[in-house]
Amino acid sequence: MGSSDKHENNGRNTPEHEPRGPRTRLSRFRLPGLRRKNSRRIRPAPGTKPGIDAFSGTDTPPSPGEVTIQCVDYGPARLAIREVEDLGAFLKQARPGGAVVRWIDVNGLHPFTVKLVQEAFDLHTLAAEDILNVPQRPTVDFYEKDLFIITRMLTREDDHLIARQISMAFLGDTLITFRERGGDFWAPIRERLKIEGARIRTSDASYLLYALLDAVVDCNFPMLEAYGEELEAMEASVCERPGPPVLRKIHSLKRELTTLRKVIWPMREVIDALHRDERQRLSPTTRVFLRDVYAHITQVLDIIETYRDESNGLADLYMSSVSNRMNDVMKVLTLMASFFIPITFLAGVYGMNFQYIPELKAHYGYPVFWGACAAISLGMWLYFRRKGWIGRP
Amino acid sequence: MGSSDKHENNGRNTPEHEPRGPRTRLSRFRLPGLRRKNSRRIRPAPGTKPGIDAFSGTDTPPSPGEVTIQCVDYGPARLAIREVEDLGAFLKQARPGGAVVRWIDVNGLHPFTVKLVQEAFDLHTLAAEDILNVPQRPTVDFYEKDLFIITRMLTREDDHLIARQISMAFLGDTLITFRERGGDFWAPIRERLKIEGARIRTSDASYLLYALLDAVVDCNFPMLEAYGEELEAMEASVCERPGPPVLRKIHSLKRELTTLRKVIWPMREVIDALHRDERQRLSPTTRVFLRDVYAHITQVLDIIETYRDESNGLADLYMSSVSNRMNDVMKVLTLMASFFIPITFLAGVYGMNFQYIPELKAHYGYPVFWGACAAISLGMWLYFRRKGWIGRP
Amino acid sequence: MGSSDKHENNGRNTPEHEPRGPRTRLSRFRLPGLRRKNSRRIRPAPGTKPGIDAFSGTDTPPSPGEVTIQCVDYGPARLAIREVEDLGAFLKQARPGGAVVRWIDVNGLHPFTVKLVQEAFDLHTLAAEDILNVPQRPTVDFYEKDLFIITRMLTREDDHLIARQISMAFLGDTLITFRERGGDFWAPIRERLKIEGARIRTSDASYLLYALLDAVVDCNFPMLEAYGEELEAMEASVCERPGPPVLRKIHSLKRELTTLRKVIWPMREVIDALHRDERQRLSPTTRVFLRDVYAHITQVLDIIETYRDESNGLADLYMSSVSNRMNDVMKVLTLMASFFIPITFLAGVYGMNFQYIPELKAHYGYPVFWGACAAISLGMWLYFRRKGWIGRP
Amino acid sequence: MGSSDKHENNGRNTPEHEPRGPRTRLSRFRLPGLRRKNSRRIRPAPGTKPGIDAFSGTDTPPSPGEVTIQCVDYGPARLAIREVEDLGAFLKQARPGGAVVRWIDVNGLHPFTVKLVQEAFDLHTLAAEDILNVPQRPTVDFYEKDLFIITRMLTREDDHLIARQISMAFLGDTLITFRERGGDFWAPIRERLKIEGARIRTSDASYLLYALLDAVVDCNFPMLEAYGEELEAMEASVCERPGPPVLRKIHSLKRELTTLRKVIWPMREVIDALHRDERQRLSPTTRVFLRDVYAHITQVLDIIETYRDESNGLADLYMSSVSNRMNDVMKVLTLMASFFIPITFLAGVYGMNFQYIPELKAHYGYPVFWGACAAISLGMWLYFRRKGWIGRP
Amino acid sequence: MGSSDKHENNGRNTPEHEPRGPRTRLSRFRLPGLRRKNSRRIRPAPGTKPGIDAFSGTDTPPSPGEVTIQCVDYGPARLAIREVEDLGAFLKQARPGGAVVRWIDVNGLHPFTVKLVQEAFDLHTLAAEDILNVPQRPTVDFYEKDLFIITRMLTREDDHLIARQISMAFLGDTLITFRERGGDFWAPIRERLKIEGARIRTSDASYLLYALLDAVVDCNFPMLEAYGEELEAMEASVCERPGPPVLRKIHSLKRELTTLRKVIWPMREVIDALHRDERQRLSPTTRVFLRDVYAHITQVLDIIETYRDESNGLADLYMSSVSNRMNDVMKVLTLMASFFIPITFLAGVYGMNFQYIPELKAHYGYPVFWGACAAISLGMWLYFRRKGWIGRP
Repeated sequence: MGSSDKHENNGRNTPEHEPRGPRTRLSRFRLPGLRRKNSRRIRPAPGTKPGIDAFSGTDTPPSPGEVTIQCVDYGPARLAIREVEDLGAFLKQARPGGAVVRWIDVNGLHPFTVKLVQEAFDLHTLAAEDILNVPQRPTVDFYEKDLFIITRMLTREDDHLIARQISMAFLGDTLITFRERGGDFWAPIRERLKIEGARIRTSDASYLLYALLDAVVDCNFPMLEAYGEELEAMEASVCERPGPPVLRKIHSLKRELTTLRKVIWPMREVIDALHRDERQRLSPTTRVFLRDVYAHITQVLDIIETYRDESNGLADLYMSSVSNRMNDVMKVLTLMASFFIPITFLAGVYGMNFQYIPELKAHYGYPVFWGACAAISLGMWLYFRRKGWIGRP
Repeated sequence: MGSSDKHENNGRNTPEHEPRGPRTRLSRFRLPGLRRKNSRRIRPAPGTKPGIDAFSGTDTPPSPGEVTIQCVDYGPARLAIREVEDLGAFLKQARPGGAVVRWIDVNGLHPFTVKLVQEAFDLHTLAAEDILNVPQRPTVDFYEKDLFIITRMLTREDDHLIARQISMAFLGDTLITFRERGGDFWAPIRERLKIEGARIRTSDASYLLYALLDAVVDCNFPMLEAYGEELEAMEASVCERPGPPVLRKIHSLKRELTTLRKVIWPMREVIDALHRDERQRLSPTTRVFLRDVYAHITQVLDIIETYRDESNGLADLYMSSVSNRMNDVMKVLTLMASFFIPITFLAGVYGMNFQYIPELKAHYGYPVFWGACAAISLGMWLYFRRKGWIGRP
Repeated sequence: MGSSDKHENNGRNTPEHEPRGPRTRLSRFRLPGLRRKNSRRIRPAPGTKPGIDAFSGTDTPPSPGEVTIQCVDYGPARLAIREVEDLGAFLKQARPGGAVVRWIDVNGLHPFTVKLVQEAFDLHTLAAEDILNVPQRPTVDFYEKDLFIITRMLTREDDHLIARQISMAFLGDTLITFRERGGDFWAPIRERLKIEGARIRTSDASYLLYALLDAVVDCNFPMLEAYGEELEAMEASVCERPGPPVLRKIHSLKRELTTLRKVIWPMREVIDALHRDERQRLSPTTRVFLRDVYAHITQVLDIIETYRDESNGLADLYMSSVSNRMNDVMKVLTLMASFFIPITFLAGVYGMNFQYIPELKAHYGYPVFWGACAAISLGMWLYFRRKGWIGRP
Repeated sequence: MGSSDKHENNGRNTPEHEPRGPRTRLSRFRLPGLRRKNSRRIRPAPGTKPGIDAFSGTDTPPSPGEVTIQCVDYGPARLAIREVEDLGAFLKQARPGGAVVRWIDVNGLHPFTVKLVQEAFDLHTLAAEDILNVPQRPTVDFYEKDLFIITRMLTREDDHLIARQISMAFLGDTLITFRERGGDFWAPIRERLKIEGARIRTSDASYLLYALLDAVVDCNFPMLEAYGEELEAMEASVCERPGPPVLRKIHSLKRELTTLRKVIWPMREVIDALHRDERQRLSPTTRVFLRDVYAHITQVLDIIETYRDESNGLADLYMSSVSNRMNDVMKVLTLMASFFIPITFLAGVYGMNFQYIPELKAHYGYPVFWGACAAISLGMWLYFRRKGWIGRP
Repeated sequence: MGSSDKHENNGRNTPEHEPRGPRTRLSRFRLPGLRRKNSRRIRPAPGTKPGIDAFSGTDTPPSPGEVTIQCVDYGPARLAIREVEDLGAFLKQARPGGAVVRWIDVNGLHPFTVKLVQEAFDLHTLAAEDILNVPQRPTVDFYEKDLFIITRMLTREDDHLIARQISMAFLGDTLITFRERGGDFWAPIRERLKIEGARIRTSDASYLLYALLDAVVDCNFPMLEAYGEELEAMEASVCERPGPPVLRKIHSLKRELTTLRKVIWPMREVIDALHRDERQRLSPTTRVFLRDVYAHITQVLDIIETYRDESNGLADLYMSSVSNRMNDVMKVLTLMASFFIPITFLAGVYGMNFQYIPELKAHYGYPVFWGACAAISLGMWLYFRRKGWIGRP
């Protein structure tokens, strides 16, 4: 598709005043085990028009603090970081001299902001819709020279898996990142930018794109370590005290790992597509480094797969442990019953009030009764011993 | 295949008077968990001739209200919406001036109507058969310039999953849609058509096709939300009160999600085939938008897959909960029996009527008996405590 | 492979008098859940020579009624149907004038008949072996101009799944079909042939091939309907009265559906290979119609897959129901035991014959005993109520 | 790879005197359920040099009877079969006149014999290693004109699955087969060779290769029949008398079928590779016949797959049967306990020795007691009847 | 990617002084069932710069004994093996005359050593990172002339599966191997190198690479034998004494085999990529031998797959055994209860103190009571016999 497609959404050329469908209900695709944070979930109603204009807040600026924008202009010899207050005015300013790369980081999603940026940089209207319409499946759209990437930053906060959508528009010498509000994941990147002579300073925008993707992927490792530790802890619990809490924990681990795999799998395809991109939109150096990101994300998926197998194994182990325990309980019951039921019957017999029960008159009746009880118990004991129910755990 | 194939079914040229096979039995391919509505299910007997003529009602017009037809003619400057009463007469009329696109929407399936349309537009006889012979697998047939698409509109009404077949014949500047009777899913599209200057008004018929497919796909999202909420509600039920109703509900959820996946999977192939179509039957702009529909349907399938995993997880959790509960029940039984069986035996012993039972004469026999009972119970209690059956839930 | 390969088996040119291996044992590849009818199962011993000559009855004509042969010669203006008594003489006769297509239908498999036909039409010796050596996997062999197709007609008779092999040799203007004895599945086709002007009369032999394949595939639909109804009926049984008969029924349904899938899957490949055949052995019109057969068989496989999922779901539901029932049984036992065991002990205590049991002397001892029993029962009731075992099903 | 690769292992050119690693331990890759016969299992230690020289017995001739070698020279007009006593001398003799094909069949594996043959025919040193280093995965190695094939002959002896490796070196007009000692599987082939004018006599060496592969594949059919009969017999056992022996039998059937599939799957790839071989090492006629072998092995795999499904189904059925039985046992226990526990309590009550129990004095006390017992039992009976535990199996 | 990519990491050209992120925490990707030995696990924090400089110890030389380096220079006529003490000095020395191949083996991983080697041989900075950042997924990176290979040496020590990463840099006539500290796996290779005239001495560096990879792959066989023996031993245990220890053992076997498969699978891809390498970096002879390594690793994976199936089968067998045992226990309990509960009730009846119980007065009351008990027991015995609970195991 050519630039004509891309440009046809320029607001000034095709002012569309189509009606908007009902937009009252928040969509809630709760992926099991996954929490999302700090962002309104808005999905246009079926049948309404596509694109950014389908959202209702495009005319109202966001309230203060809802969206913060940071612009970093840098080159080998120059670095300027500033907070953008008035986006409209900022977009009309020229870039400072000596800055080879501009990186605009939009923290927080709002239709007004996104529409401003979309119009200023001629993004496709569907790309703008995808930025807002979280969660989207991680994907990359290739345009003639530009790239539009959707990815997800996964973290674990307060024992909950949280996914924040990060959209990146790569426009040659400019990189725009949109992200759902949350922790400052770009801090190490900014630190590296501050070092004069660092490779990230002397490289082009595609290296910055690589650095961001690398950070997104590597964020998974500390999370996976936490899962690994939990699984290790679970194994002891399963054998020692199987019970509903352990069961629920296993179930929730399985669910989170399944969700994790679902989210990360398409991200691998994104990295792979970027790495294989034959149009040379990214510099060769960057693509060598992307191969490394690809190896990392493959390793992440391998570990997730291993942990899923492990959690499935734990679930099986749990079921087997429960069966084992039930077996133990049943054995105790059966042993108790088998030992006492016959001799209780015998005691009942000699409690009967028949007039003519010769044994009752016998002088040694009572000791003989105890002897019989002991004999019966011994017989039982030998029987169960042979069955292997006694003497071996 | 060329137009010769397509034309050879023109009724006037090849009047076929072949006999018809028995058509008494209604076919009933009940997909588990799926209800179909308002449409006769008719499947020709094996071995009878193919095509529209295999159906028995081609000569009898439908009863009033059984089929309603709406025709929308529009262009950038013109819009005419009218209900078609006499289809035969309508098909002979010319198109109004200024109308670039004609959209004929046939609501309700009847052999007579389908045959009229098929002859007027030279549709392939097998396409006409597929329109009537519901349910068909979603598919797209490519002709030289035309397209014939079968898809399904899924809704959830009264707790039942309902699928209505929607067939679309795309003939360059004309789009004909056939659908099983039901709710008015096209209303938002018609609203957008009424806006002068809207992109849908200024674009060609392929954009209308896109808009309809987009509506069909996006209809799944509210339905999936409902499933997501049900699954969330189920999880609490499974742990708190596992029982046959919960079990049946899980089973039916699993079944509906499996059916959903089966129905939607081929729809993705349809969208993909349309998007990749190299013959340029659809305009490039439309194909960019179709890529977005493809992303949506992929996301729908992802969510379904996640929900299926979740429902399978719930089924496992249910089984484990039942086992846990059974374990609890068994433990209580065993504890009760273990505490009382030995001391009941003891009581039986001293209820015996032997003449010479020395303990019975002893003054403190009775309190000593209680002491023995207490000692036995304490021993049991310590034993079960050590086993972990008492004191921890 | 060229015609040289095909011709080299002509009996007159290469009279082979090789010894035959032992042929006493009937091979019995019982596919689970599948019955075969009316045909000897003969499989040559390992290591013996390949081809039709490996069979032992090639010199003895079949007994009367074992094999019936029908020949249909037709063209737009002519139709001749006749029973063939003396195959040898018939094969030497010329075809009647005006007959464009000859269809020889051999009902019943016998080495003598197959060898006669093989020699008259120069079929490959391995094809002749496959005709006799039932069951073969459905397959299609492409020769320079000819086709050799093996398929299976599936029916359900007396609650048993029955598969009959149908082999078709397509030789340009002649179609020869061999089938295991059974019901007359070609009757609707012959009826259509009798209509003058019908498409099947005016088309070439490939259309007849299509019509036969279409009948074979569509025969599955009534069978699937029967399975659908059985599955629906099973679901009620599983929840209401789970027991060994239900279990066996589910097991046999699962097995039959698995076998069905195994048999039909390669038939889809056959249809697909015919449709994609690039050598134009079949006319373009026929190939358009074959696409429809392909869609049908895909739908058949979809339905089978759905029914298999459903039967697996029923098996799971069965297991869960059994567990639920066991749980119920255990609960009743535990409740009974828990209520009565303590008070039975108490009754035993006051049945003891100790001389000094003060309670026995007390005037209100007996009513107080009943009060104690009531109190214990009430305590138990409250405990089980709190556990949720009483009062909720 | 060219002939240079193949020749570089010629012992005379590159005499290697490398040290050999420890070779004391026999390798034992017991495939579960599979027995191997009559052959030493020798696997070189990790890190030692590759090829035939890694084996320790290359200098010592085999003891008499350990290895028997048969040479068959034949052509349309000539057939000579002889036992080879002195292999070294034999390899230097010229081939008799009129013999088009030479087939050397080595029965029994010994490093000395293999090395002699390898040097005489310039086989690759790794091929010679694979001949000895059983079991190898079935495979085919393509050289410029030659083929080296490893396959497995499967038989069932004394209720055990036995696999013997058969290696074949196809060298244009010479075929050398090496096999582990065992039954004479080539007897039918030799019988066919004795018939003058038989196709196998008049064809080239590739047809002999086909005949041997066909025999190897067809050997599976009698074995599969045996499995089919066992599975049929198992099904009755599972429902009638489930118990540990049945369970172990199912487990061992599952295992053998899994192993069978693992062994035969790569053999299909071998046949497929031979059939698709584009270098025309095999004659066109042979390749037509190989297609038939391919169809046979596909059918073998289909049957194995079906039997595996069936054995899995039996395992599930077994588990369900056990659950059903346990349910029955529990029901009987619960019924017994529920009927007798209350009335036993009642009997205990009236066995108490309280001084003032008014009922004891009543004249009709005893009959009333029996009436109460009957009433309680009736109540229980009605309750369990309503629950469906009595009266329906 | 060209050499420019490879060279750009040369430390002298691009001195980077970027800050390092926090490096306090050791990463711990415990693959379940897999132990790693003798190596610090260091993973850079997300967002920090890539490459060797991300590690903190690049300036501090390793403590003595932490890293040992051996250099082998050899050619057909020369062999020099020496321990390298001062790596910096060594790297500046010239290679001795007559040595065609140089093999540097670094035993032990340390940032300082790796950085020295990386700078001396211009390895890519990401390759150096991967050497240190264990565990990495086995992989091969292709450069213009060079190869960088990561693989894993698997051993089983003290009942634990241990994986050591081995990285190999193939630079035409030089091979550098880095490995985690552990046993001396290269000893057999060095022995072969000492033989004058051995193929490994007369071949180029790619043959050495093959020999090392062959040793790595063949190391799996003794380990698999151990697993095979354990599985065989488990099977007896499962049937004879199922219990928690057996269960845990099965679980851990399953886990180790799953991990094994995960680790070895990518190694197969590595071997395959090397074998298919079209750039002729490896000599044709070596590639023939690599095909053999590929066959070995395929066989390893086959065996692992078989063992995994087997361990799954054992887990199923275990569950069935537990069910069987529980069934046995329940049967004994039910039999005991069923025999004694009715007659205990009877004894209770005649222990009642009603004034008018006529049976008590009867002279033969007591013997008749015993007769009744015997009759009841016989009835029970016949009932259970018919049910099949008695008399058959």
